[in-house]
Amino acid sequence: MLVGGEHVLVDPDLRRPYETDWTGAYKGRAAAVVRPGNTAEVAAIARLGMPLVPQGGNTGLVGGSVPDDTGTAVVLSTLRLRELGAVNTSSAQVTVGAGVTLGALQAHARASGLDVGVDLAARDSATIGGMVATNAGGTRVLRYGTMRHQLVGVEAVLASGEVISHLGGLEKDNTGYDLAGLLCGSEGTLAVITRVRIKLVPVYPHRVTALLAFEDLSSAVTGLARLRTVAGLDAAEYMVRRGIDLVRSTFGVPEPFRREHPAYLLVEASGAVDPTAELAAAISTLDVLDVAVASSAKDRERLWALRELHTEALTRAGPPHKYDVSVPLDRVAPFVAEVLEAVDSPSRTCHHFGHLGDGNVHLNVLGDLADELIFGIVNRYEGSISAEHGIGRLKQPWLHLSRSASELAVFASIKAALDPIGMLNPGVLLS
Amino acid sequence: MLVGGEHVLVDPDLRRPYETDWTGAYKGRAAAVVRPGNTAEVAAIARLGMPLVPQGGNTGLVGGSVPDDTGTAVVLSTLRLRELGAVNTSSAQVTVGAGVTLGALQAHARASGLDVGVDLAARDSATIGGMVATNAGGTRVLRYGTMRHQLVGVEAVLASGEVISHLGGLEKDNTGYDLAGLLCGSEGTLAVITRVRIKLVPVYPHRVTALLAFEDLSSAVTGLARLRTVAGLDAAEYMVRRGIDLVRSTFGVPEPFRREHPAYLLVEASGAVDPTAELAAAISTLDVLDVAVASSAKDRERLWALRELHTEALTRAGPPHKYDVSVPLDRVAPFVAEVLEAVDSPSRTCHHFGHLGDGNVHLNVLGDLADELIFGIVNRYEGSISAEHGIGRLKQPWLHLSRSASELAVFASIKAALDPIGMLNPGVLLS
Repeated sequence: MLVGGEHVLVDPDLRRPYETDWTGAYKGRAAAVVRPGNTAEVAAIARLGMPLVPQGGNTGLVGGSVPDDTGTAVVLSTLRLRELGAVNTSSAQVTVGAGVTLGALQAHARASGLDVGVDLAARDSATIGGMVATNAGGTRVLRYGTMRHQLVGVEAVLASGEVISHLGGLEKDNTGYDLAGLLCGSEGTLAVITRVRIKLVPVYPHRVTALLAFEDLSSAVTGLARLRTVAGLDAAEYMVRRGIDLVRSTFGVPEPFRREHPAYLLVEASGAVDPTAELAAAISTLDVLDVAVASSAKDRERLWALRELHTEALTRAGPPHKYDVSVPLDRVAPFVAEVLEAVDSPSRTCHHFGHLGDGNVHLNVLGDLADELIFGIVNRYEGSISAEHGIGRLKQPWLHLSRSASELAVFASIKAALDPIGMLNPGVLLS
Repeated sequence: MLVGGEHVLVDPDLRRPYETDWTGAYKGRAAAVVRPGNTAEVAAIARLGMPLVPQGGNTGLVGGSVPDDTGTAVVLSTLRLRELGAVNTSSAQVTVGAGVTLGALQAHARASGLDVGVDLAARDSATIGGMVATNAGGTRVLRYGTMRHQLVGVEAVLASGEVISHLGGLEKDNTGYDLAGLLCGSEGTLAVITRVRIKLVPVYPHRVTALLAFEDLSSAVTGLARLRTVAGLDAAEYMVRRGIDLVRSTFGVPEPFRREHPAYLLVEASGAVDPTAELAAAISTLDVLDVAVASSAKDRERLWALRELHTEALTRAGPPHKYDVSVPLDRVAPFVAEVLEAVDSPSRTCHHFGHLGDGNVHLNVLGDLADELIFGIVNRYEGSISAEHGIGRLKQPWLHLSRSASELAVFASIKAALDPIGMLNPGVLLS
């Protein structure tokens, strides 16, 4: 037996949680669910040659970790690959199993005075393996980059069942193609990631948050260029009047300044020394309409609430259609203007906010779907139809808007090279 | 005609500079040298199907940019791909041609108040295309990473002559495999890079340098773990007694402290605000034998001279055999001890120093070659036989010491997928 019997789930009731995605939009059917306990078991499963759907915490938003409805695929759950290696404080690195949740890794790293560079809301379910496979982003990309930038090594099982392992944690290592980087973001289509080596970041004792008001989004983009010199800048989130109005009317929170302003930038910095003076000095060179600086935890939370309540306010007003897109930073303002012009109508309202530091705009449409309209505009602005969520099954039909035919042909040739029979996550990412 | 006649060099005298590598160790022969002026010309050359050796500034150290001696390959020089795009100050990015030198890009970026994250000594000859193709490192990897971490987009010509181009500069873009990252470090074996989009970094007005003395290398490694919390830390270079003695006896420079010490760490930090207090506070928590802190340019230069004179002192005493290796950071001290034990002999002396932040050790052997001995020890320490220089032709026979048979098989399958007839840089990186 490849895997202990209790870890091969064939009963429909036991299978179900693994067959349905987090959003509820994708319900598939698996031949079985297997939960291997180590890399050798993953390799043995791969050698069966059956279609495999690798699944971590199943928190994805694009249908990339559940099977289709043919019942032919095996869901390979990584949740038992829970090894937590010792934190190496010299190199600030750790090796963990693919099934370790972000929350568990954060707790493990913090016990050694370190932290994970990527953070996101699904931390208690999302697994590190899944986050690597989808190159997860989150709220601190501005400072630390996406998962690809935390990754210093990977162990994975190929479609052939062969294991590749490069977990030495060398930050300088020019010995051939960057396989770890290639698997990162490949959404389980090239290999099953079993272990990863992750670079950790310091935990900083000092933190400061500021809310800046601008006369328009374009001024906020210009302002951000100057704020980038603040070495400890962690986040730069933008909001606009329409969103603030919705949050205020939904939750009755107070207007942040005495006057209403058209656009807001929420910035946060942290450091081993207090970054308040440095941030204030950078802000003083900007053309802002109003500023609030918060150093206490309570004041900082109050400022963040404005941004974080957007999601809940939109859910109550909707549910909204969510579009996670990015465009070149200097085109964010005209892009958003064009989207609003095209999408807003008596039957539809478009809200937007986002991680301005990365050009990542979260469009939330209340009312009718606007896929074709929005992805078409993204395409004209040389943007990405998926900034952080990935392609999965959901966005596969639109991938040609962000990638040329030549690029798609290269994707297909790499896929064929690593997975000639197309057994890994069929139907996901590639057509 | 594919390329203007004056840019097809067949005369042996004109070809010669392109056929000989910078070290003089590799002298090949090309059927011709072509110098295309744009991407379309590169594509037309690729469609001829002849063996192509892409070449930038020809400053590599591993024979990766010169042809073999069969006279069958065409050297494709990128030196005319010199486009310098406008610096986008909102996103801190720029698009440049592959043939732009690092020095030219630095000057271009600095005119907009920005800088390139990677710096290295060959800046006035090394091209950005070559630096991306070899994932160049240099002196600031600790803070900004290697070239792969500066790269936000690439345009390249495939073996088929097809062009892939993804230069929008989106920092969050999860739409398929990371082709830019894959080409980075592929040493010209998968495609010819024609243009790249590079992320720039701030220019900081304040800078501080400190020299710390430790009782051994292992204590320096431990100390560095604490210094990593200094957000503006740019460099952490180590030196040892033997190297300091050589520099002192060669150049007559004074001992840095009143007493001689076994090991030294040279650290530098920079920022929008003066990082001296933050660095001093971090140093005060360490177990150091002596400290010198320099904030003035002159004092900083004096400290750096100790490190930089190592190269020249070794050249005068040698020339040395140079080994650019890396090992996991917490194993640097035992690794070096074992190398010295094995290599030092009446006919051979091994010097070492390096970029400690990256685990990158530069071994310099005066006397007999020690390839097999050193690479064998690197292998046992799970290290890399090439930290930053790449594999090229020089280290190809040793690649199996850093990469498993399974990994090499994946490399070969990716190579076959993108370059089925093996026309791109044959003999380099892969056997």
